[in-house]
Amino acid sequence: MRATVLHGAGDVRIENVPDATIVHPTDAVIRVTRACICGSDLWPYNAMKPGGPGQRIGHEAIGVVEAIGKDVAKIKVGDFVIMPFAYSDGSCTFCHEHLYTSCVRGGFFGAGKVAGAQAEAVRIPLADGTLYALDRRVDDAALASLLTLSDVMGTGHHAARVARVAPGKVVAVVGDGAVGLCGVIAAKRLGAEQIILLGRHADRIALGRAFGSTDVVSERGDEAIERVLELTGGFGAHSVLECVGHGESTNTAILITRPGGHVGRVGLPQEATMPSSQLAFYRNVTIGGGPAPVRGYIGELLPDVLEGRIEPGRVFDRITALDGVPDGYRAMNERGSIKVMIKP
Amino acid sequence: MRATVLHGAGDVRIENVPDATIVHPTDAVIRVTRACICGSDLWPYNAMKPGGPGQRIGHEAIGVVEAIGKDVAKIKVGDFVIMPFAYSDGSCTFCHEHLYTSCVRGGFFGAGKVAGAQAEAVRIPLADGTLYALDRRVDDAALASLLTLSDVMGTGHHAARVARVAPGKVVAVVGDGAVGLCGVIAAKRLGAEQIILLGRHADRIALGRAFGSTDVVSERGDEAIERVLELTGGFGAHSVLECVGHGESTNTAILITRPGGHVGRVGLPQEATMPSSQLAFYRNVTIGGGPAPVRGYIGELLPDVLEGRIEPGRVFDRITALDGVPDGYRAMNERGSIKVMIKP
Repeated sequence: MRATVLHGAGDVRIENVPDATIVHPTDAVIRVTRACICGSDLWPYNAMKPGGPGQRIGHEAIGVVEAIGKDVAKIKVGDFVIMPFAYSDGSCTFCHEHLYTSCVRGGFFGAGKVAGAQAEAVRIPLADGTLYALDRRVDDAALASLLTLSDVMGTGHHAARVARVAPGKVVAVVGDGAVGLCGVIAAKRLGAEQIILLGRHADRIALGRAFGSTDVVSERGDEAIERVLELTGGFGAHSVLECVGHGESTNTAILITRPGGHVGRVGLPQEATMPSSQLAFYRNVTIGGGPAPVRGYIGELLPDVLEGRIEPGRVFDRITALDGVPDGYRAMNERGSIKVMIKP
Repeated sequence: MRATVLHGAGDVRIENVPDATIVHPTDAVIRVTRACICGSDLWPYNAMKPGGPGQRIGHEAIGVVEAIGKDVAKIKVGDFVIMPFAYSDGSCTFCHEHLYTSCVRGGFFGAGKVAGAQAEAVRIPLADGTLYALDRRVDDAALASLLTLSDVMGTGHHAARVARVAPGKVVAVVGDGAVGLCGVIAAKRLGAEQIILLGRHADRIALGRAFGSTDVVSERGDEAIERVLELTGGFGAHSVLECVGHGESTNTAILITRPGGHVGRVGLPQEATMPSSQLAFYRNVTIGGGPAPVRGYIGELLPDVLEGRIEPGRVFDRITALDGVPDGYRAMNERGSIKVMIKP
């Protein structure tokens, strides 16, 4: 079968690889209907050292179950499923707490021995715990939004939940990538009164406005902070969604949070330390977040997707076959595309 | 009147100063019944540069109202009151949210123009919002515990609340100073099942055990982390109270928190950045806390103090008149005393 392999910074290739097969009796194999490229894939795309065996990349997919191991009981061949970006057994102490991304037997797709999903097919460890099977047929038009439940929509929702977005709250979203834009959807969906999007790309800002952002701040650093304070009566936002992961964006997120407010981090942090620890302290700002346990959010978000009340699939502004994946990486890396969908 | 003045590192003096008087119509003046020395007073005691005008220090007191300004309506001359370490108007947007330490007109005792409470008397800005008047007489024996509602007991309680201590939870308290010990009381009071105290001073550990800690960890750094993980089934604590403020103690606090758990910081952070930001992220550890809005906790904690269900006053192991205050600083700084009470 064909799959995407990252060999080093800027070096993405489509290669013939061994077919995905059942390795453990709890595995399934899915034929990938749609996959996509994530903003977080751009970190290794820009930083991976060459010379190793290559990494099978991609952690977002929807597809049809093609085979199951002998211990798979809930998932059936033929099921149409959403694959969360993390696999999890659904039965450990953390899964019981709905923190699927800390599953004691879990892990992430496209990391180590678990191959990535930017491929014709993918092996799913712990299939019963991991996969979410849909109980109805879905139109092609809905596939894009369904696919976002694999990561970005659930991740934006996680940021909003951790930041305690609620009706009437003032929300700021740092970052206008696909996750930030899904954060806008999540904030609107949870009843935010004011949603300030911090971003500087015209196409993304336009989509952010369509999703419900009431204000846009395109300045950076201290100027961005001043502008958000102006827009919030001098106090800052109750809830801030950090959807980038840089030190500067994290600093901005903390400094635009109102005293007593909450930051929900979902951008992969690129620095070992967190800035403005003392300022966060003196303002009683709470900072949380991490890899989103999207498996637990699918049930909540799915009805809104299927009934068209939210349209996170609009973050995909390019669709390609596997051959176009290397170009897709280049386009996303140059900010020429918000998010690339793959139809293998 | 006589008051404590800090002139530089290690240089605490008792001096004759002008009597505390009403300056603004919203002020009160209280005659100090009891004050005390705080662990946080040791930061300037160890670091203050000499040569300035000196700082009138101290932010914890109980006392009797001696005078009120013409706009003071609730507080009356003769009231026996608890003075929270921060003053606040009780009417701003943050006071309405019970975040009194972010009051837009508020501030801290012993900072800038607002004199400290280690004195015979102290001026109270915004007296109606700041002071908590008791509605009954109190025995001398209860004064010590009452005094802790001015700061350390409320601060330990804040750490516990922010760390989401609840019935059945596993709690770790980093730091065996007065605040950490009050954190143990707070954790026990809120129903924690296991309370691990990280500390290394025999007298403090003994008191921690009396207050309800079930385990003591006296190692430091990586060894302390390993030990806590051993005590918690390998996962860490649900709720961690950071009651020191050093980079190392903060790092320990983060690394002993179970995935999905919460750190409540109340130790004044001594470093601009927070360690282990990435590890906190990958575990979805939430970090909150700051200056405790103790004004809002007095009503909740007072009945337990007055009826003897909690005895935070046991953190005072030395009592002195004003003349003994410089010795009290030395004793606390050398860990020869947990906390010094002052009877002016």
